[in-house]
Amino acid sequence: MSITAADVLAAAERIRGLVRRTPVVRAEANGIELYLKCENLQDGGSFKLRGATNFVRSLDAAALARGVMAYSSGNHAAGVALAAQRSGTKARVVMPLDAPKVKVENTASFGAEVITYDRFTQDREAICKALAAETGATIIPPFDSLITIAGQGTAALELLEDAPDLDALVAPVGGGGLMAGCCLIARQRSQSIRLFGAEPELASDTWQSLQAGEHRSIPPSETIADGLRSPSPGKLTFPVMKEHLEAIALVSEEEIRTAVRWLATKVHLVVEPSGAVPVAAVIHGKLPADVRRIGVIVSGGNIEPSQLAAILA
Amino acid sequence: MSITAADVLAAAERIRGLVRRTPVVRAEANGIELYLKCENLQDGGSFKLRGATNFVRSLDAAALARGVMAYSSGNHAAGVALAAQRSGTKARVVMPLDAPKVKVENTASFGAEVITYDRFTQDREAICKALAAETGATIIPPFDSLITIAGQGTAALELLEDAPDLDALVAPVGGGGLMAGCCLIARQRSQSIRLFGAEPELASDTWQSLQAGEHRSIPPSETIADGLRSPSPGKLTFPVMKEHLEAIALVSEEEIRTAVRWLATKVHLVVEPSGAVPVAAVIHGKLPADVRRIGVIVSGGNIEPSQLAAILA
Repeated sequence: MSITAADVLAAAERIRGLVRRTPVVRAEANGIELYLKCENLQDGGSFKLRGATNFVRSLDAAALARGVMAYSSGNHAAGVALAAQRSGTKARVVMPLDAPKVKVENTASFGAEVITYDRFTQDREAICKALAAETGATIIPPFDSLITIAGQGTAALELLEDAPDLDALVAPVGGGGLMAGCCLIARQRSQSIRLFGAEPELASDTWQSLQAGEHRSIPPSETIADGLRSPSPGKLTFPVMKEHLEAIALVSEEEIRTAVRWLATKVHLVVEPSGAVPVAAVIHGKLPADVRRIGVIVSGGNIEPSQLAAILA
Repeated sequence: MSITAADVLAAAERIRGLVRRTPVVRAEANGIELYLKCENLQDGGSFKLRGATNFVRSLDAAALARGVMAYSSGNHAAGVALAAQRSGTKARVVMPLDAPKVKVENTASFGAEVITYDRFTQDREAICKALAAETGATIIPPFDSLITIAGQGTAALELLEDAPDLDALVAPVGGGGLMAGCCLIARQRSQSIRLFGAEPELASDTWQSLQAGEHRSIPPSETIADGLRSPSPGKLTFPVMKEHLEAIALVSEEEIRTAVRWLATKVHLVVEPSGAVPVAAVIHGKLPADVRRIGVIVSGGNIEPSQLAAILA
């Protein structure tokens, strides 16, 4: 089953009114115009509510009643928790022990049950599957599902509606759900728009995979961009990215911190490291010089206050 | 000469395309819906660009050529500097020695010449007038001018267009330019909307004046809300506020800090203390309990990074 832009358009219909239409904020750096799609202002604090809502709203009544589950470093957990709460069902989420406290609390605040695991020694997918088998709950995949990908793509759809005539679009790449969904809808709306991904140097699994032309995996990563630590691109997302991406820009940890600081002090937006990764790519000149008007998916804002304080101090 | 809502509507026409239409972001606290008019995302970092642009664009060509001047603790200076730059004229601004560094740099970045003074011993208005007399430059008043007030009111006009059916509107009160402009246009658009101001307890000059029924002055204030330190309400702004405001809510320094933190960590917006004052009034229950849907003018975002770091740590 292959995914197309039509799936993104169907998702947009399905989630209408259940997900916030976030603002697009214009900013400028080194003469480049950035159109920031502010998913840091999304309910739950990230774009993840889009895919989760698309998934929850695709379940039949019986499945919905049995509840949903997810494994996630944070934002997908919160997205699933909030989507479940808004649809009157239960969510259980499996989160790493070292997930940012702000993300665990955020998830719990939407009524989800949080189960923790050690991401260096335990397999979150196996834990999640075992628990789901007990209850009959549906696991909502964080990225490698047609329905999840289609939901995430609605962020780019709205961005392109609000900011037409962009030269290019850039999004952060973790497992690739957001990036793949954005690629599909952006290419459908414009044959000429240039599509870029952005990854931390410390979690360059998709960059490596694109270089190799096939899936590559990396060991657990310590990048501060905690939402982009997935070890490899998805089975569904990778072919889409391979077809559509011109390149993936890699940014250092220091460049990510500088972007978080720039967003807070110059644009007045609080953005988490993962969401600042594509901004880092733009302001540090990692994209081709002839890209002048660029849409940027600012994927989330759930940063630990102490971490933001340290970056600003 | 009395100011009316028609002046605000005229200002909106005059500044169209020269000032950013900022987004309205919905948030929730204690069951109250807040509709945040994000002037922290305005060009120059605050609403002050509105009044300054309205003023600069009201000058004839000869006056424009002689340049403009302003005295300001920071945001008005930046607004005038940017409005002047965009109209191809020169700005000189008189700023206190202890103005936030971020605001001085912001102003200078728009090409203005910055002249400093000691706000405890020197009279900024006199300094400004003497310099203006030398060059023939026009002084743009920070709040006590029909044209400035009308420009600031456009923030409320946009907010009410984007978020109709509000119970109430609250804005920060310094000299009262923003508040008066907002009162005029809000009352014209709705007979039932309830209008509130918000002030720091440490700079309650307008609250005291309303209690007394006439102008009262306070000594120089040390509130962290540096944009609201004006010693008394304006001659033009006070009668407007007296006619329209139901009340002024007073907030403590700690309540202002808590609001800055809440905005950064829960809403993901960077807001300066002055802009957080009306939010502090809402989240700390300083408004009547039957106000459930409230428009809030978040006036600016120019906070010193070290100050924000200290509030977040």
